[in-house]
Amino acid sequence: MQTDLKGISLAVLGGDARELVVVRKLAALGASIKVMGLPVKNITGVKIIRNPGEELSKIQALVLPVPGMNEEGYLYCPLAARPLEPGDWLDWIPPKIPAFVGLAGPKLIQIASQTNLRLVELMKLDEVAILNSIPTAEGAVQMAMEMLPVTIHGCKTLVLGFGRTGATLARLLGAMGAQTMVAARRPAYLARITELNLIPIPFSKIDDAFDAVDLIFNTVPAKILTEDILRKISPETVIIDLASAPGGTDFKAAEALGIKAVLAPGLPGKVAPKTAGLILAQVITRLLLKEMGK
Amino acid sequence: MQTDLKGISLAVLGGDARELVVVRKLAALGASIKVMGLPVKNITGVKIIRNPGEELSKIQALVLPVPGMNEEGYLYCPLAARPLEPGDWLDWIPPKIPAFVGLAGPKLIQIASQTNLRLVELMKLDEVAILNSIPTAEGAVQMAMEMLPVTIHGCKTLVLGFGRTGATLARLLGAMGAQTMVAARRPAYLARITELNLIPIPFSKIDDAFDAVDLIFNTVPAKILTEDILRKISPETVIIDLASAPGGTDFKAAEALGIKAVLAPGLPGKVAPKTAGLILAQVITRLLLKEMGK
Amino acid sequence: MQTDLKGISLAVLGGDARELVVVRKLAALGASIKVMGLPVKNITGVKIIRNPGEELSKIQALVLPVPGMNEEGYLYCPLAARPLEPGDWLDWIPPKIPAFVGLAGPKLIQIASQTNLRLVELMKLDEVAILNSIPTAEGAVQMAMEMLPVTIHGCKTLVLGFGRTGATLARLLGAMGAQTMVAARRPAYLARITELNLIPIPFSKIDDAFDAVDLIFNTVPAKILTEDILRKISPETVIIDLASAPGGTDFKAAEALGIKAVLAPGLPGKVAPKTAGLILAQVITRLLLKEMGK
Amino acid sequence: MQTDLKGISLAVLGGDARELVVVRKLAALGASIKVMGLPVKNITGVKIIRNPGEELSKIQALVLPVPGMNEEGYLYCPLAARPLEPGDWLDWIPPKIPAFVGLAGPKLIQIASQTNLRLVELMKLDEVAILNSIPTAEGAVQMAMEMLPVTIHGCKTLVLGFGRTGATLARLLGAMGAQTMVAARRPAYLARITELNLIPIPFSKIDDAFDAVDLIFNTVPAKILTEDILRKISPETVIIDLASAPGGTDFKAAEALGIKAVLAPGLPGKVAPKTAGLILAQVITRLLLKEMGK
Repeated sequence: MQTDLKGISLAVLGGDARELVVVRKLAALGASIKVMGLPVKNITGVKIIRNPGEELSKIQALVLPVPGMNEEGYLYCPLAARPLEPGDWLDWIPPKIPAFVGLAGPKLIQIASQTNLRLVELMKLDEVAILNSIPTAEGAVQMAMEMLPVTIHGCKTLVLGFGRTGATLARLLGAMGAQTMVAARRPAYLARITELNLIPIPFSKIDDAFDAVDLIFNTVPAKILTEDILRKISPETVIIDLASAPGGTDFKAAEALGIKAVLAPGLPGKVAPKTAGLILAQVITRLLLKEMGK
Repeated sequence: MQTDLKGISLAVLGGDARELVVVRKLAALGASIKVMGLPVKNITGVKIIRNPGEELSKIQALVLPVPGMNEEGYLYCPLAARPLEPGDWLDWIPPKIPAFVGLAGPKLIQIASQTNLRLVELMKLDEVAILNSIPTAEGAVQMAMEMLPVTIHGCKTLVLGFGRTGATLARLLGAMGAQTMVAARRPAYLARITELNLIPIPFSKIDDAFDAVDLIFNTVPAKILTEDILRKISPETVIIDLASAPGGTDFKAAEALGIKAVLAPGLPGKVAPKTAGLILAQVITRLLLKEMGK
Repeated sequence: MQTDLKGISLAVLGGDARELVVVRKLAALGASIKVMGLPVKNITGVKIIRNPGEELSKIQALVLPVPGMNEEGYLYCPLAARPLEPGDWLDWIPPKIPAFVGLAGPKLIQIASQTNLRLVELMKLDEVAILNSIPTAEGAVQMAMEMLPVTIHGCKTLVLGFGRTGATLARLLGAMGAQTMVAARRPAYLARITELNLIPIPFSKIDDAFDAVDLIFNTVPAKILTEDILRKISPETVIIDLASAPGGTDFKAAEALGIKAVLAPGLPGKVAPKTAGLILAQVITRLLLKEMGK
Repeated sequence: MQTDLKGISLAVLGGDARELVVVRKLAALGASIKVMGLPVKNITGVKIIRNPGEELSKIQALVLPVPGMNEEGYLYCPLAARPLEPGDWLDWIPPKIPAFVGLAGPKLIQIASQTNLRLVELMKLDEVAILNSIPTAEGAVQMAMEMLPVTIHGCKTLVLGFGRTGATLARLLGAMGAQTMVAARRPAYLARITELNLIPIPFSKIDDAFDAVDLIFNTVPAKILTEDILRKISPETVIIDLASAPGGTDFKAAEALGIKAVLAPGLPGKVAPKTAGLILAQVITRLLLKEMGK
């Protein structure tokens, strides 16, 4: 990589294994990085913040933890020796600089508006969502492997939804030799599913698909696997729900019916933290270069 | 297929091998079809129009040729014994019925507005564009095979653009073992290219990609392969331009430089007329059923 | 399936989840099955043996557990309420009938020769080895997913050996988007690796491959990952050894060097017992039909 | 490539576009090459033979045309200004050196034995056969594309035989989205076909497969597509026979039945001469290095 962040100064506050990767990667590209609430050691170009008032006042960008902060104003910093109090950093951030975060909750949005921080919600970018769909899909397949007594190869699988995650997951399953049905509403999606050599299922005909399926992945954020539907499914079916909480499955009904169903949110950070960090580093680098007009 | 067009009456006027497939397919689904300017014989449910005044007045939908009509008002009917005069049919069509056509030119749009025909331009539907990208991609690969002294497998290939055709073509090339670079502008497209195990090339770095490439496919409707660019390319490179006419290549400059470059529009109807017809039949069926509220 | 085992009588003695699948599958094909040392209930056509002397004397084939028997002559029967003593069954088996087993140890070979049993070692059949390579490859990928902080997609992977397991595993990794190198000795194997769009590594150049690899799978039953080699590998590399015990890795040296290395034998029965059972059922069915001259 | 042929002296006699590639490639690796009966110009390290007696007497290896010589003893040299008489070269070749040829006919075998030449028949090497299966498969697909009115994607295809060519072709068809059945006799082949996500057809059940197939490729060198079989096939089926002449199809019967069937031998040299030449160059290089003990 010849991309060059030399001369750019930024702070990374809190975070987990992903932010450690971000720090290492951006430092390797020449950025000068100040860190707080994250245990880094001996990386060229990286300094632990001792004197926030001085060290934070000259940064050009801020990297916050993927989950941002809780409603009490504490940044997410599970690896830190002690919590990062809002007062530890907030007052010293220069106004109008970009602050990269996964998704911002109400508290962070309120603070950003008060302090004139420019929040960039990375998880809302199509680019990040698509790149994250790769570890999500692999994590989902790993869970399926653990839960099923059969191989993915030859397994009758139904993917509900063909958005960013659904598309990646369906393609992976097909490549692994699963008999992959994909349910979607839009005719254009059904056309693309056909092109990918997967089996398109219009939502209007989904009942037939439920019949002899071994494995269901849901990616649609709507109550789609209702008790009515679950009753039609064999109790040996495994359901992995990737929609954001509370998912699209009636988990209580599933349990009552003896169907194994799990909600699996936030897979990238869990199953492949280094990949998840590299994705963030890549996108932050691109956005920083754009900010700097490079 | 259980889709049922029973009770639906439609007319097919002119067209080529594709419309023959459409007629056969829709008839097989139970539609009652009247035909003019297209040689059909002995298909259950299909009648040749003898008395347009009577037979056209009761139809519920009209299927026009993919290329519509020329500026003199003549429908495209290369298989007919004699041209279809506008007067042959136009006066008898009931108002407000849908008229399916590939793309409508100015003359057809004018006529439709005068006669209260509801034009449905199939080629503008995402669904059709994606399904047609399959024969387009195969036709493009076939042309490449004919023009290259090497196999697609192992061939260094660059696809310009990652729209509906570019995505299908790039995936096909990758599946065939080509070393496939795909140039795109949007970060989200570059992310999807990465996910597909193809090599993403930001347009900003495209010059490097041109260096050692054996084969270029253009799908971008803009002058992209200019004389300047062509000068950087080895004369053994083959260029296949799939953008709509006049394409994105400076063909004169290519010729002067000894680079083989061809413009290849309208591939589906040429290389796989039956598939092209089946795509039209599938989409017309879906739209008819929707019209009928089924 | 129309294959018909009606009229065939066989006994299944001991075994685990795989043999349960075999029993169910063969019974569904019409075989009459007597069982001992395996908990089956209420399956049409399946009877628990109460009176071995009578019930075993008329069988036409015998299914033994995949691991056969131990050196004391006890069949492998982890699901049984009590161990199966040799005296429980051995005396009643008719001579010359085929006895299906995974691999036969010395004790079973000796007994078979004394009692005139015709041992069929299923794991030695190419067919079974290839079909089992599918759950083996998936199990190996699952282990890699658990051990790595990155995705398989994009991971630099080296597969040592291109036999039945190596070929399946390499193909799966490639399909999942890993950058897959495969080391083999035979020129014909290197040619096939090329054809599969994987990266062929002649064993003579393997040292270069070790350089920047994230993940190594060994399938070669020889001391190949010696201390010398391991010293050249980054400590972040993960090694999964699929060769039969003791594997091809110097595990002690790996541990001393901080390299994560695991031996993973017998994956099919562990990660996908139902698939493993279905494979056995399919092959036993084919062999039985052949025996019966069908 | 760091392989080094420096110091090796060889002669290339006759041949076509493939041998031109071989000459260029081996010269680029440092070999000193003498040429006769093949138009080469201005390649560093390559000399046209003027004085055979002197120039041939010191060579260490000989490259003959892929088809060798005809029964009159003339080498295949379609690009030469005049035929190469046997007397032009034969007397001067040092004994016991290796002579690379595609396949040797009776005349060449006789001559080699008389003159103590060590023939190396490249086409008999597994390695070459597998690498050549790539251009063969692509050439076969190109022919199918030209003959079919539908796309390969979605096409119901039957490949007869799963040897070196059959395996490559079946995999390519599957990757392109054809519904690919592969007929084979050996259980191990059927297992591998299953693993590849293709549809295994035991030869015993092949009749069912013929039923609704659009496209058949034969790779089995035996009369397999007899008149009896052809009568069961729809006349719209396309047959491409890749078995060595006379192929496995009753072409007369096919014609009488209106089935399009073609024999397609020797595809690599025809559809991808440069690739075919590169394959020869790669294998000759490997064998030369081995000869030289490198």
